[in-house]
Amino acid sequence: MRMLRINGSRLLEDLKELGRIGGTPDGGVSRPAMSPADVAGREWYRGRVEAAGLHFREDSAGNLSAVLAADDPTARTLLTGSHLDTVPNGGRFDGALGALAALEALRTIREADLRLPVHLEAMSFTDEEGEMQDLLGSRALAGTLTSRDLDQARRGREELGAGMRRLGITPQGILAARREPQDLVAFVELHIEQGARLEATGVDIGVVTSIVGIRSHWLRFVGQAAHAGTAPMDERRDALWGAAAFVRDAWELVMSRFSPGVVNCGQIHVQPGAFNIVPAEVRLALELRHGTEPLLDEMEDALLGLAEEVARGHHLALETEPAAQCISASMNETIMEAIEKAATELGLRHMRLMSFAGHDTQAMSAITPSGMLFVPSVDGISHSPSEFTRPEDLLNGANTLLHTLLELVPGSG
Amino acid sequence: MRMLRINGSRLLEDLKELGRIGGTPDGGVSRPAMSPADVAGREWYRGRVEAAGLHFREDSAGNLSAVLAADDPTARTLLTGSHLDTVPNGGRFDGALGALAALEALRTIREADLRLPVHLEAMSFTDEEGEMQDLLGSRALAGTLTSRDLDQARRGREELGAGMRRLGITPQGILAARREPQDLVAFVELHIEQGARLEATGVDIGVVTSIVGIRSHWLRFVGQAAHAGTAPMDERRDALWGAAAFVRDAWELVMSRFSPGVVNCGQIHVQPGAFNIVPAEVRLALELRHGTEPLLDEMEDALLGLAEEVARGHHLALETEPAAQCISASMNETIMEAIEKAATELGLRHMRLMSFAGHDTQAMSAITPSGMLFVPSVDGISHSPSEFTRPEDLLNGANTLLHTLLELVPGSG
Repeated sequence: MRMLRINGSRLLEDLKELGRIGGTPDGGVSRPAMSPADVAGREWYRGRVEAAGLHFREDSAGNLSAVLAADDPTARTLLTGSHLDTVPNGGRFDGALGALAALEALRTIREADLRLPVHLEAMSFTDEEGEMQDLLGSRALAGTLTSRDLDQARRGREELGAGMRRLGITPQGILAARREPQDLVAFVELHIEQGARLEATGVDIGVVTSIVGIRSHWLRFVGQAAHAGTAPMDERRDALWGAAAFVRDAWELVMSRFSPGVVNCGQIHVQPGAFNIVPAEVRLALELRHGTEPLLDEMEDALLGLAEEVARGHHLALETEPAAQCISASMNETIMEAIEKAATELGLRHMRLMSFAGHDTQAMSAITPSGMLFVPSVDGISHSPSEFTRPEDLLNGANTLLHTLLELVPGSG
Repeated sequence: MRMLRINGSRLLEDLKELGRIGGTPDGGVSRPAMSPADVAGREWYRGRVEAAGLHFREDSAGNLSAVLAADDPTARTLLTGSHLDTVPNGGRFDGALGALAALEALRTIREADLRLPVHLEAMSFTDEEGEMQDLLGSRALAGTLTSRDLDQARRGREELGAGMRRLGITPQGILAARREPQDLVAFVELHIEQGARLEATGVDIGVVTSIVGIRSHWLRFVGQAAHAGTAPMDERRDALWGAAAFVRDAWELVMSRFSPGVVNCGQIHVQPGAFNIVPAEVRLALELRHGTEPLLDEMEDALLGLAEEVARGHHLALETEPAAQCISASMNETIMEAIEKAATELGLRHMRLMSFAGHDTQAMSAITPSGMLFVPSVDGISHSPSEFTRPEDLLNGANTLLHTLLELVPGSG
C-alpha cells in the first residue's frame, strides 16, 4: 500500500479537459455554479465517474459524487473532494484539483483492488464560490443551510430559480440534503493554497490548522452635505474624510495588533456624489478574517471601536449593520497528523498554516472530523486566469491525499 | 439722492411670490433652468418688469432684463442682476435676491425720477446653476461660452434641445449673445453669502474681493485585485488604502498650507467592488478652490504631487485626468470701494471677503469691471430648502446695491 501512487498523466489530462469547459481565451475558466458551463462540467464529470467503474451519485442539493463501496453495505463513509464551479473568469485549479484528485484517488484504490472497511466517496459540491450562497452544497450536506439563506441568494431569487432548474434541484431538496454524522468517518479536501506562503518557503504540502472565520459589516458614516466652496474646511462634517481616516487607521491597527488576521474594505459608496458637494454619507464594506472566534471577537471590537472613535473625531454619526459571517473552523488533529505522515512518507516537506479563504471543509467540519491540505500556488495568484500550480505539485497533492485517506481508514494504523 | 431707499415691502412681496413658483412643501424651491417651473418664473418676471413701466428685454441666450433707459440713446449701460433659476430642491434667495433687488433698484430710481447719464439694466441670467452649463447666460453675454460647452451640456444634448425649445432659444442664438465691452460701464451683483462668515462676525455686508477659481481632476489609483483572505496585508496593492491615505493627507495639506483655499473629494468609485476582493482600482473626484491663479497653481501642484507620493508609497499607479475648471476672478477695486462707501453711508458694517462659490459676476468680469456684495446667510446654509436670509439683511443688501449703482454712475462721484 505504501508504494501506491495515483496515475499522474490521467489526473493531468482530466484537469486539462475540465479546464476547456467554460475555458476563456486567456487560459482562465468561467464556470459559475448553475450556469450552462457548470452543467456541461457536471455532465463531463459524470462521464468520467462512470468510465472509471465507480458509482455516480447526485444528492438533492446537486452535490455530485463518485462512490467506491465497501463490501459491507452498512459501513461508514470516508469523504473527500472539493468543487467543480469557478468564480467568473477564474482559474483552472481552484476546486477542480480537489474534486478530480479525489476521483483519481478512488480510481487508484479500485484499480489496486484494495478492500477497505469503509465506503469511499469523492465529492463535487454545488456552488462553493457563492454564486448564490457561499458553500451552498456543503452547507446543505452539513445541514447548516437555511431557507433564509436561499431567500437571500446573492443573484436574487429569480436567478436562483433558473439555476436550480438547470441542475434539476429544488429549494426543498437543497434543505433536505443533510447527511447523518454517524454515517461518516471524516472529510479531507485537497486545494491550491491561493496564497504564496508555501512557495515562499519552498514547502510542498500545507497542513491546514484552521479555516478563518469571516465577519463583515456595512459601516455608514453620516455627516452633512455642504457646498464644496463656501463651507470652511474646519466646519465640514465630511463623511468621506472620516471614512478615509478609518480605512487608513484600520489597516494600521490590524497589521500592528492582529497579524496574520486581515481586514478589507472592498466597497465604498458616497452620497450625494458630486465634485462640488461635500459628502454627506459614506457606506463602507468592512470584512475581517482571523483563525479563531475569540480573536475575531477581539478584532471586531477593536475595529468597530475605531470606527466610532474616528466618526466622533470627525463629527459624524456612525451606523453599523452586520453582513455575512462565517464561523472559523479548527481542523481535526488526527487528520492533520495523517496528512503529515502521508507527506513524510512520500518525501515531501510540509508545514502547518491557516487558511484565509473559505472552503467546503469549513462547512463539513460541522458534521464530521475534517482536514485540509494545500499545494503551492505560483505567485499566490487565484480567482484569476493567471492561477497556476506546477504539475509536480498537483501530483504531490493527489498522492498525499491518497495516502491520507488510507491512513484514515479505520484499523489502518 | 443719499436718502433714497428701495421699497422694502415690495421687494419682500416679490421674493415671496417668486418663491411660490416651483415651491416645494418644505419651503424650498425647485426651479432648474429651462424647466417648466423656470419658464413660469420667467413669465412672472416679465410681468413684474412691465408692471413697473420698465422696458423688458430678452437676448438670444435667454437672458432677461429690465431696462431703464437714459435720455441719450448712445449712452453706455450699467448692469446689475443675478439669476432666477435654482438648483433642484434649492432655496428662495440664491439668485432671486440679486435679480429682484436689481429690479427694485431700477423701480426706485425710476420712481425718484432720477435722470442718469447711463442706461440701467437689471439682468436675470440663464442657467447660472449649470443645469446645462455653469453660468451659461452670463458666459454667453461675455462671449466666453463655446459650442463645445453646449456639446457637453451636463444633462446631454437632447435635454438641452428640449430646454432651449421651452425658452425659444437656439445654440446659434446663445453663441451670438455677446455684448460689446465698450457699451458697458460695469456689473454689480448682490447675492446671499452661502457661507457663515458674515453671520459669525456680525457684519452686514460682504465686499467680495475675488471669486475663487476651481480646478478639478479625476484621480485613478491602480493597484491589483486580490483575495481579501489569502493575500497577506503587507503584500497587497490596495487601491482604496492608497486613496484613503490621499484623502486624509490632502485635507491636512490644504488646511495647514493653503487656508482659506479648500479641497473636496466628492465622488469615489472602487473596482471590482466586493466585500471579499481587495480593491484593484479607485477613481476619486478631486476639486480645489482658491482666490488667485498663482495660488491655484501652487495648490494643484502640491495635491497632485501628494497623490503621486501616496501612490508610490502604496505600490499603486496613478493616472490623473483634468475635469472642469473655472478661472478665478478678481473684483474691481473701484467697485469694491463704491460698495464700502454705500454701506458706510447706510450705517452698515462691512468686510472684504473671498467668494468660494461661482457666480455670474465671474463671467461678467471678463468683459466689464465687476463687483459683488454679499448679505448674511443664516447658518451659512444654501442649495437647500433651509436656506434663509433675514428680511432686514435682504433690505440692507438691496439698499447697498442701489447706492453702489448710484456711486458708479459716471460723474456721480
